[in-house]
Amino acid sequence: MTYCLGMLLHEGLVFASDSRTSAGVDSVSQFRKMFVTEAPGERLIVALTAGNLAVTQEVITVIDRAAAAGEDEGNVLLADSMFTVARIFGSALRDVHNRDRPHLMAHGADVNASLIVGGQIAGERPRLFHIYAAGNFIEAGDETCYFQIGETKYGKPILERVVTPALRLIPAAKCALVSFDSTIKANLSVAPPIDLLIYERDRLRVLTRQRIDDGDAYFNALRGYWGEGLRALFADAPDPDWKSGIT
Amino acid sequence: MTYCLGMLLHEGLVFASDSRTSAGVDSVSQFRKMFVTEAPGERLIVALTAGNLAVTQEVITVIDRAAAAGEDEGNVLLADSMFTVARIFGSALRDVHNRDRPHLMAHGADVNASLIVGGQIAGERPRLFHIYAAGNFIEAGDETCYFQIGETKYGKPILERVVTPALRLIPAAKCALVSFDSTIKANLSVAPPIDLLIYERDRLRVLTRQRIDDGDAYFNALRGYWGEGLRALFADAPDPDWKSGIT
Repeated sequence: MTYCLGMLLHEGLVFASDSRTSAGVDSVSQFRKMFVTEAPGERLIVALTAGNLAVTQEVITVIDRAAAAGEDEGNVLLADSMFTVARIFGSALRDVHNRDRPHLMAHGADVNASLIVGGQIAGERPRLFHIYAAGNFIEAGDETCYFQIGETKYGKPILERVVTPALRLIPAAKCALVSFDSTIKANLSVAPPIDLLIYERDRLRVLTRQRIDDGDAYFNALRGYWGEGLRALFADAPDPDWKSGIT
Repeated sequence: MTYCLGMLLHEGLVFASDSRTSAGVDSVSQFRKMFVTEAPGERLIVALTAGNLAVTQEVITVIDRAAAAGEDEGNVLLADSMFTVARIFGSALRDVHNRDRPHLMAHGADVNASLIVGGQIAGERPRLFHIYAAGNFIEAGDETCYFQIGETKYGKPILERVVTPALRLIPAAKCALVSFDSTIKANLSVAPPIDLLIYERDRLRVLTRQRIDDGDAYFNALRGYWGEGLRALFADAPDPDWKSGIT
């Protein structure tokens, strides 16, 4: 499995992804799921991937190659808007699906894949998209300002309580790490290192990108604080007034 | 969907279940998923159900009928142990599956169903079982002292952090309610009223059973406390020491 998270905030964007892939418990490995395309001062594009690794790697490679070759078609460095960037990712996903699906299905393999794509192009505001397996996509807004893909459920409750568009960037990154901690604790298929990228609106370059592994001092301090804090909060929770009859 | 939870603790057992069933968002209704069979002073048996409602209702009805009729076979009131009780539930689930599966599959309906069954029979310790769709089952112990069925993921992180066999009964019930709160917040297919039953070891009767609806004063106080507490805890979380470059 995988867990990836993207947030669209008034101050900018926060992205996080884990690094575990598994094809059964006896085939566990580590792959990066965060991909950054940058033209400093002009545009920054981040893609997070979940699902069939061969499918998502092919999508990323096709897009990287088009950008590196300066192609006219499917080049995210030339796209006039983040909407066009999302369409390029959706089209690449469709192309890979069309080419690979019959072969994957013949082997009973999972053809599912999805992406979170976000960033900013000079002249536009920062934008964030959730690209489905079918290549169609939705865009985040003030009502729904974050997207998750992969193993999304364990880490959702804390996001629901804390994340609003007005949340500042560093607190949002902290919240992302707490959400990852809850997921990692509950599910073996999600694991560090966590790739974390914080993008401040209108800077048009990456200023903060962290790779957080198991031994990361800050992540461990945050995990310890959160675990202890939850237990302390729980210990002080109000008692029910039921007549329990319990001795 | 559904969310049900059973815990096996040194002091006894805690059971909780929601009341929402849905067959699509335009067919949402309210059904009880907790079923209690009691012979005060001699045995107490609790079953929680998830999955296809027609299947689980049939299982419960078959078992209730056998008990009411005093039958020799499949009678949980005559079972010599909770292990035998779990077998009776598993067999009833298999019988219903065998009878209904071809017809359900012909209509493309979901035949999945699972149960949590626990309780105590005089002379035995309290025991707790998770009964799978195939009618086989596993028993809780000190290493894994709780079972969830249905929509399990949102409510798992708090259980993982708090629940151990040594947790006392009232705190365990509070933790169950917090776990339900997280699930209800994240997923429309789980909803109050929550049926909550706290069983104190060796009492062999129900002393505490609550039906907690949306307007329940204690549940709302607990939800408010927990939501506020989480936000306050989060607000005080340690800051990272990364050079963020963020202005």
